Amino acid sequence: MAKSQEVEHPVKAFGWAARDTSGVLSPFKFTRRTTGDHDVTFKVLYCGICHSDLHMVKNEWGVTQYPVLPGHELVGIVTAIGSKVQKFKVGDKVGVGTIVESCRSCDNCANNLENYCPKLIQTYNSVDNDGATTYGGYSDIMVANEHFVVQWPENMPLDAGAPLLCAGITVYSPLKYFGLDKPGMHLGVAGLGGLGHLAVKFAKAFGVKVTVISTSPSKKEEAIKQLGADSFLVIRDPDEMQAAMGTMDGIIDTISAVHPLVPLIGLLKTHGKLVMVGGPEKPLELPVFPLLMGRKLVAGSIIGGMKETQEMIDLAAKHNITANIELIPMDYVNTAMERLVKGDVRYRFVVDIGNTLNAPF
Amino acid sequence: MAKSQEVEHPVKAFGWAARDTSGVLSPFKFTRRTTGDHDVTFKVLYCGICHSDLHMVKNEWGVTQYPVLPGHELVGIVTAIGSKVQKFKVGDKVGVGTIVESCRSCDNCANNLENYCPKLIQTYNSVDNDGATTYGGYSDIMVANEHFVVQWPENMPLDAGAPLLCAGITVYSPLKYFGLDKPGMHLGVAGLGGLGHLAVKFAKAFGVKVTVISTSPSKKEEAIKQLGADSFLVIRDPDEMQAAMGTMDGIIDTISAVHPLVPLIGLLKTHGKLVMVGGPEKPLELPVFPLLMGRKLVAGSIIGGMKETQEMIDLAAKHNITANIELIPMDYVNTAMERLVKGDVRYRFVVDIGNTLNAPF
Repeated sequence: MAKSQEVEHPVKAFGWAARDTSGVLSPFKFTRRTTGDHDVTFKVLYCGICHSDLHMVKNEWGVTQYPVLPGHELVGIVTAIGSKVQKFKVGDKVGVGTIVESCRSCDNCANNLENYCPKLIQTYNSVDNDGATTYGGYSDIMVANEHFVVQWPENMPLDAGAPLLCAGITVYSPLKYFGLDKPGMHLGVAGLGGLGHLAVKFAKAFGVKVTVISTSPSKKEEAIKQLGADSFLVIRDPDEMQAAMGTMDGIIDTISAVHPLVPLIGLLKTHGKLVMVGGPEKPLELPVFPLLMGRKLVAGSIIGGMKETQEMIDLAAKHNITANIELIPMDYVNTAMERLVKGDVRYRFVVDIGNTLNAPF
Repeated sequence: MAKSQEVEHPVKAFGWAARDTSGVLSPFKFTRRTTGDHDVTFKVLYCGICHSDLHMVKNEWGVTQYPVLPGHELVGIVTAIGSKVQKFKVGDKVGVGTIVESCRSCDNCANNLENYCPKLIQTYNSVDNDGATTYGGYSDIMVANEHFVVQWPENMPLDAGAPLLCAGITVYSPLKYFGLDKPGMHLGVAGLGGLGHLAVKFAKAFGVKVTVISTSPSKKEEAIKQLGADSFLVIRDPDEMQAAMGTMDGIIDTISAVHPLVPLIGLLKTHGKLVMVGGPEKPLELPVFPLLMGRKLVAGSIIGGMKETQEMIDLAAKHNITANIELIPMDYVNTAMERLVKGDVRYRFVVDIGNTLNAPF
């Protein structure tokens, strides 16, 4: 992706950006476009911190263009709409997730799978159609084409709902696509962080039996009592693992570090599905025989399309599913990133942009 | 699996077995059980040589019990039936594939997936219910429960049809299960050997567009002109591979050596399926991002259940699908094994048991 020119837009904006691979965020002035015919402009009130924000500010995936202004779980209140906008009006509560544009003409776009469009434009660190760099949700205002703006359900809290826009759809979409949403099924959720804890909640809403698979026995009580998981499996306990062999219809694997797949594949029934939603930087070891001996599969899935994102958040509202969050002020973001490295959050940081982002102009 | 006792049965039998890890086969006397109530006894006429026979005679998978008498693609003529046999009569043409018994009570057995029964008994190198070692098709006679005996279609040749019992069902089953059998789809077939050439034929019978993916440009003309493939891709040609990126709905990967998956995953469309039917001994490298960026999957599949095996061979008969074979005499088997190591066969050796296995008694 070519570095964009510094396109000067008419609307002054303000946020926190990282300038180099230290990943340290600090106040940053920039501009956004005026509200186009199909655009929605909104005041950002809350923005979740996704683990990928951490990778991006430090350029750990090698694709970061500095300055980078992260945030792709942002919600707020509409302040202006374009003349052709149909779904929104000023004052509406709205959200934007990880995507702000796609080609609108490929097979994936035609099938409501904008997330798999080869030309998708991400909410930050992408080059927009006008040549400008996209800047994310750690900022005061946002402008986006209404196609990529989510209608916020009335009873959904803005702060604890924000993480649904990335973490929520990331686990919801594979549960639906891979048919792991049928009542009575048995689902494993590997890794209990921002993604994992939402996978537990959605699966329970579907009537699925959920076992959390974790390296941390300390999370057991919380997983069962607070999140509603049916059981808890310590991945390093050979007796527990042996007893659970061949019992699961599927596993949502949220572990983003390199990890062995063999124990997870062993937990699956015949025709079981291991779905990766985390992104380990290095290849994993894939043993073929354990896949052959049960027609099992290992798959990947990343976020979801806009239609499905709306469906997800409407269903979440109906079932009172929100993220467990720790609400933080904007100037705590660097500390939050340090804690995120250590997995020290239950389960998602959300920045209180509306009350704590102080603009210098 | 415990080594069986040398169970002495009443029926004298004769075949060729390997005695040690040299894998050299030589004449071998043994016994088979008398025809039980539900059994079919048949005179073996032809038996295909599967690549797994080669692994087994040399104990390359570490599970071989010597003496081992291979062969799990055997066909012949019924000579006796048990009192409760319903599907067969003396004189019928029949076949036996890789399985001769299963538990009949697990979920897999209940769903016609005997091939995934954890207690399945293989046609050779297994311990049968009576404690005897199972011996395969490189032999004069066979006894098997009728549930595991295939009815041979009238117009299906015995010699060129024999390899369908393992190689055929191994590629047919995943084409059906993974939905890669829809007219107009685009299928890749990686590796053009015993399995691959049958995958091409079945896929073409389904109306699927087939591209053979191979390391050997020398196979191109044959793949297209003789087997009916639509196109041919040399996996080491970066231009050809680049041009084919993102074009395939699925790939049947028959390559049994360790090989890179990234180029194959790259050939898949969004939601594409890479199905492994070969069994590399070592784990493969699985990069996760290429799976995420298109909700792709890597799966395994091994042979098929008895109901599906019958369905497969009936469909093969209808479409005149047989294996391309080189018919050999029994005493050529060791040379054939050496040629198999080098991939020097197009595409399957079949032993002419009926005419060339000379019994010493």
